[in-house]
Amino acid sequence: MTDTRVEESLFQIIHCYHEYAAREGDAETLSLEELKALLMDNVPRFMETLGRKEPYYITQLFRAADKNQDNQICFEEFLYILGKLVKDYHLQYHRQLCAHYCTQHSLY
Amino acid sequence: MTDTRVEESLFQIIHCYHEYAAREGDAETLSLEELKALLMDNVPRFMETLGRKEPYYITQLFRAADKNQDNQICFEEFLYILGKLVKDYHLQYHRQLCAHYCTQHSLY
Repeated sequence: MTDTRVEESLFQIIHCYHEYAAREGDAETLSLEELKALLMDNVPRFMETLGRKEPYYITQLFRAADKNQDNQICFEEFLYILGKLVKDYHLQYHRQLCAHYCTQHSLY
Repeated sequence: MTDTRVEESLFQIIHCYHEYAAREGDAETLSLEELKALLMDNVPRFMETLGRKEPYYITQLFRAADKNQDNQICFEEFLYILGKLVKDYHLQYHRQLCAHYCTQHSLY
């Protein structure tokens, strides 16, 4: 069975998580440094806004996601961060549609 | 700025939601029929297992996601379903890795 584009997208996100989780320490979880690298390299649009590149932002995000407070983000905990990413890119999606509409109708 | 593969994946999932939401009624939300079509067309690996093609499964999933009980799934509510999909494909990802390892080491 060939994967659909949505399935490929889901696997791409999951593969990215594991690629960074495997960098150091526990190969199945993200450390603070691994999470920071994952976000900086893979979701620059998310990181560019709202001062998210400030060290305190990533530390706070890490702490909020680390429900069992073991100083590691497991895949289940990563879903909290993924939810934030999806909501942010959903807003960006609508902003792009709006900009496209305005350009087409010469509203700028 | 060129989108990364993870950003493309996030936009792909968001685009898919809107493509099906626009089919009938409120163009920003999914009806039961729209959710069913979205799942059948885009996540067949998810739908193939655990009797998920049974009508009662999709109806139950729809009800569980529809937090405000307005008989529509808005994007925020869709995140509940997306969480289920990501968890399911995460298991499939590990199963594939395991199968690959076993094949390479002639363990079958």
